[in-house]
Amino acid sequence: MGLKRAGNQTVLFDNPPVILSSYAVVGPKEGKGPLGKTFNSIWQDQLNGEKTWELAESKMLQEALQGSISQAGIGKEQIDFMLAGDLLNQIVSSNFAARLMALPFIGVYGACSTMALSLALGSMMIDGGFAEHVLVGVSSHHDTAERQFRAPTEQGTQRAMSAQWTVTGAGSVLLGKKGAGPKITSATIGRVIDYGETDASNMGSAMAPAVADTILNHFHDLQCTGQDYDHIASGDLGTVGLALASEVLKQSGVDTGTEFTDCGVRIFDSTQDVHAGGSGCACSAVVFAGDLMQKLRARALKRVLLIGSGALHSPTSALQGESIPGIGHAVAIEA
Amino acid sequence: MGLKRAGNQTVLFDNPPVILSSYAVVGPKEGKGPLGKTFNSIWQDQLNGEKTWELAESKMLQEALQGSISQAGIGKEQIDFMLAGDLLNQIVSSNFAARLMALPFIGVYGACSTMALSLALGSMMIDGGFAEHVLVGVSSHHDTAERQFRAPTEQGTQRAMSAQWTVTGAGSVLLGKKGAGPKITSATIGRVIDYGETDASNMGSAMAPAVADTILNHFHDLQCTGQDYDHIASGDLGTVGLALASEVLKQSGVDTGTEFTDCGVRIFDSTQDVHAGGSGCACSAVVFAGDLMQKLRARALKRVLLIGSGALHSPTSALQGESIPGIGHAVAIEA
Repeated sequence: MGLKRAGNQTVLFDNPPVILSSYAVVGPKEGKGPLGKTFNSIWQDQLNGEKTWELAESKMLQEALQGSISQAGIGKEQIDFMLAGDLLNQIVSSNFAARLMALPFIGVYGACSTMALSLALGSMMIDGGFAEHVLVGVSSHHDTAERQFRAPTEQGTQRAMSAQWTVTGAGSVLLGKKGAGPKITSATIGRVIDYGETDASNMGSAMAPAVADTILNHFHDLQCTGQDYDHIASGDLGTVGLALASEVLKQSGVDTGTEFTDCGVRIFDSTQDVHAGGSGCACSAVVFAGDLMQKLRARALKRVLLIGSGALHSPTSALQGESIPGIGHAVAIEA
Repeated sequence: MGLKRAGNQTVLFDNPPVILSSYAVVGPKEGKGPLGKTFNSIWQDQLNGEKTWELAESKMLQEALQGSISQAGIGKEQIDFMLAGDLLNQIVSSNFAARLMALPFIGVYGACSTMALSLALGSMMIDGGFAEHVLVGVSSHHDTAERQFRAPTEQGTQRAMSAQWTVTGAGSVLLGKKGAGPKITSATIGRVIDYGETDASNMGSAMAPAVADTILNHFHDLQCTGQDYDHIASGDLGTVGLALASEVLKQSGVDTGTEFTDCGVRIFDSTQDVHAGGSGCACSAVVFAGDLMQKLRARALKRVLLIGSGALHSPTSALQGESIPGIGHAVAIEA
């Protein structure tokens, strides 16, 4: 049997896994944004009765996971594996959610690219013959991320115009071997790319080269162009990163088609004081699980390329003066 | 096609992936331990010329990754994917190693179970038809872990007798679709189990229930017993956790066979002042890549069950009073 592969970085699915359901939970700010109507659940505050932001984030992830199981109408015992990850140290939001789910659990870390990475891995597990149902979920929370990566939230530090606003939310997707729904047809696993950006308030610049690299490799591996997709969505480049990635692709002679945009640019509007846009694992996850999945189900979009973007630094590495490596993982979804 | 599965948690490989090579790098203390002669490279100090412990850990991981590629005698361009993880926040040791390797990269987080989890995932990618060669690597470093999880290293805080000593080291394995070497025949993905342990100086107790659960499920799924293995090795339960896991299994009526031991118990001896034994991602990784792989290659061991054990807390969750969830992932290797 030949490899299910195209080029150096792309895997192909013989029996494309089906997205049976998806579920997006967000915080109040995200609920008031332009995509507010596309989310399944909007919390009224950042804690929702939990005593810490960290517990709130994990609870949000549980709600998303349970939501996608419930939407798919299957029993939890039919799920073979759960894949999850988040931004917190040692991915505790995911670990604590997995403790309650009691499913065989695989922890993933791809920073804000974790949803795309988990969709790629889950699809390989299903198409590879190891699972019928794989549950995927990721989360992020503005306040847990601010205090871990930047400054104490209560300090109210002024934010740079290139900074992005970590999305409070959780997105989940239930993948199945068969059933009705959009299908994942290929995935391109990214390489770590680092152009030397050291400003932790400018994640878009740090991630843009990796996203451009993955799009270039996806097109090269599959011998396709942007015209083969209705919609190309990067994860959370924000306005600064999206402009940079677009410029790199343009200079590389790549046609990104009619619609190349970014979940971080779309999730908030200019009145919401988020500067360069949204970020965090939940950013691409809730835009995908909400808006994009609704359009795929309605066949308003037929072919979508989602490129999760991740900044692979830590607060320690940043304080030690290291630059910020980026990564992009792409998944192609067809209605 | 039926699923390549047994029971609820175990995956089976139709064409078992081959461990083409393995490479273990350790620090000076590990080099002086009872398994010192089994490691490929022993550093003379904890920094080896790097300016921070964190950079040293990442360099150690690079050395291990390059070592296993070199031992396998293949070109780096033949490697399809790299899987890696470590204990540091945002797995920066792995991210920085991946930046230099420039291979399509999948970040994994299973705390100290990361080697076993990565072997399971890499094997699914190969047997699933997505890769011919998958490079796996994990690392840990005593000094990076101490200051991140416990207290500033320079403070010299007295350690509890149940505490373990994080292994300074990195282990790497190169998996191939074909070739000569021991093979991975099955893997059991663990569930997160939490019996309420809150003492971060007693990781063995926190992880023991999860390891016992995974062993029980592995035996149940495959309808086998400890007599089917020459050697069962948990990752880093240490003396406290190993005794607890053994007791749980005994009370469950499970025969763990003639040899059930723990990499954390074996890597140091009683004169090395490590209290309950070794721990860290590198603990099971270097014992597996060194001692166990040598015995498998020499056919002194024919069937080994490695159960990576992970404590899935963070310093923040511990300070917030949360208990420590544990996980165990098992891989079966045959000579």
